[in-house]
Amino acid sequence: MAAATPLLKDELDIVIPTIRNLDFLEMWRPFFEQYHLIIVQDGDPSKTIKVPEGFDYELYNRNDINKILGPKASCISFKDSACRCFGYMVSKKKYIFTIDDDCFVAKDPSGKEINALAQHIQNLLSPSTPAFFNTLYDPFRDGADFVRGYPFSLREGVPTAVSHGLWLNIPDYDAPTQLVKPLERNSRYVDAVLTIPKGTLFPMCGMNLGFNRDLIGPAMYFGLMGDGQPIGRYDDMWAGWCVKVICDHLGLGVKTGLPYIWHSKASNPFVNLKKEYKGIFWQEEIIPFFQAATLPKECTTVQQCYIELSKQVKEKLGKVDDYFVKLSDAMVTWIEAWDELNPGKDSAKLANGSAK
Amino acid sequence: MAAATPLLKDELDIVIPTIRNLDFLEMWRPFFEQYHLIIVQDGDPSKTIKVPEGFDYELYNRNDINKILGPKASCISFKDSACRCFGYMVSKKKYIFTIDDDCFVAKDPSGKEINALAQHIQNLLSPSTPAFFNTLYDPFRDGADFVRGYPFSLREGVPTAVSHGLWLNIPDYDAPTQLVKPLERNSRYVDAVLTIPKGTLFPMCGMNLGFNRDLIGPAMYFGLMGDGQPIGRYDDMWAGWCVKVICDHLGLGVKTGLPYIWHSKASNPFVNLKKEYKGIFWQEEIIPFFQAATLPKECTTVQQCYIELSKQVKEKLGKVDDYFVKLSDAMVTWIEAWDELNPGKDSAKLANGSAK
Repeated sequence: MAAATPLLKDELDIVIPTIRNLDFLEMWRPFFEQYHLIIVQDGDPSKTIKVPEGFDYELYNRNDINKILGPKASCISFKDSACRCFGYMVSKKKYIFTIDDDCFVAKDPSGKEINALAQHIQNLLSPSTPAFFNTLYDPFRDGADFVRGYPFSLREGVPTAVSHGLWLNIPDYDAPTQLVKPLERNSRYVDAVLTIPKGTLFPMCGMNLGFNRDLIGPAMYFGLMGDGQPIGRYDDMWAGWCVKVICDHLGLGVKTGLPYIWHSKASNPFVNLKKEYKGIFWQEEIIPFFQAATLPKECTTVQQCYIELSKQVKEKLGKVDDYFVKLSDAMVTWIEAWDELNPGKDSAKLANGSAK
Repeated sequence: MAAATPLLKDELDIVIPTIRNLDFLEMWRPFFEQYHLIIVQDGDPSKTIKVPEGFDYELYNRNDINKILGPKASCISFKDSACRCFGYMVSKKKYIFTIDDDCFVAKDPSGKEINALAQHIQNLLSPSTPAFFNTLYDPFRDGADFVRGYPFSLREGVPTAVSHGLWLNIPDYDAPTQLVKPLERNSRYVDAVLTIPKGTLFPMCGMNLGFNRDLIGPAMYFGLMGDGQPIGRYDDMWAGWCVKVICDHLGLGVKTGLPYIWHSKASNPFVNLKKEYKGIFWQEEIIPFFQAATLPKECTTVQQCYIELSKQVKEKLGKVDDYFVKLSDAMVTWIEAWDELNPGKDSAKLANGSAK
């Protein structure tokens, strides 16, 4: 008997940034094999990345990125997993799932292997509820609903743009916490999905992340990290802050919680500290900036919102460090490249003909 | 060997509103027996409520409430569990745990009986983190911490004012949902405690609730419900909305999640519909009111905040229905009664000598 067609089979790409052979896919075979993979090869483009037999994939190395984007390739980070966002840009699908190559299949408390992708799809296909908190968590899960006192006018919810999954085993800690708690492992399986309320920022991790590319793709830019840049390990955080502000503005939802993946390997905390330390300072100014950021109501597409945000970044965070001036420019380049590769979609152009 | 002294033994009162004999306490004996109980007897004061042997308690019926508060007793609801807030007022302790008499000890997934009170205490004694969302939930639980990207300046958190617990078995649904899903039971044990972010309202249920009376007590008014009032079953909701707005203003935290209790009996949905139906309309205006409510920075005590809120209720919600004019007056009476019974504490008086 033929296997059932998995959900969104032809509407979802799996994006994987890597510098090594993708043996980790063996474990994911039952869950990923019917989907298309976009592999973004980081580092030395002359190296060959082995992909296990039977997977349907396209692979881009740095030479490919340079060829496709030309001078605009400057907005794609090198020697940093931030390069994964190139995969979001070249995808033609409605949904993206992105996962790190040191993430394996986790088990739920009953011992059953967790189909992370299926849970992300479930999260993305059901509405979010950012306007009011539901104490029984996601009201759209089986066996749950809105509790007493939840306004009926808010029960339709809003479209879900992002599904942020979590990690068992090695938690996603910063370098100082890794150094202080080298042995801490996450063994708590929290059986919940919840909407991050409107107006609240969160630390978005790119290890295990699903999103609706049509709704929020152009804001999923992972910034300038790695080679030639003063920081690393803030790529997903940057994307998360921008994404959340824009989702709040456009009336879209962000869910977090299930699914878990098994994060196998703690990265080196000393190396991480070097990458992170400027970010640790800067985030004290970045967070208040994003908490206070508002977008004009004329911004009705993700691209317009993102261009507007890039201007605010230059104006407000440019004072913190010149890096943010460069980042702001890269944000604009990213949108230009996005629109070039995705013609005919909503663009950064405002109705009056020019990005504001 | 003597039993260990439980946490906060002399600093916490358990408040129980009831109309029947308190046999349900037998199941709670190992967890409650060393604490002091405040029983608020609702309905016919000539009826005798039996309390199982060995519990240390004081009991107030309607005659007692009238005697103690005189004309101010009008702010305490009759024939409605909203009367429980009288117990908050007469307590002299720093912490309150309140529970309904149809709530029993639940079991965690390992089959162990849950000491709900101990979990509330743990929640109340550890800080909250309302300014930024932590994806691994309460960072102060064992085995958890702040994740990468969480600003270090926010990791001290803020004092926790409220611990909102949940329910296995019968979920806390409104009448329409009860009618539509008569057989739905909550069997999902979510092993999480989390802070409800600043600026986000939630439906606070009074069935299984702990709070710091010193920090937020005067805002825990359960309103005018039941006998002679046009609505019921919005007592805890009303308190929750007021409490959350004031906690946000004063920099206090509200946690929700663990502990679970076992809610044994669904109340009659037809009776509930009659009590609720005006609330179902009104909450569509009440929620936007509370979402938009701001308090002036001169309001630095809970009482001052509450008096200010009562004025806004009269001004804004008074237009929705005369009931809110009456409720606004009752809010003021409640604060006057609170200050009378709790002299020397922070009061509603502003520094210039009169409540603003």
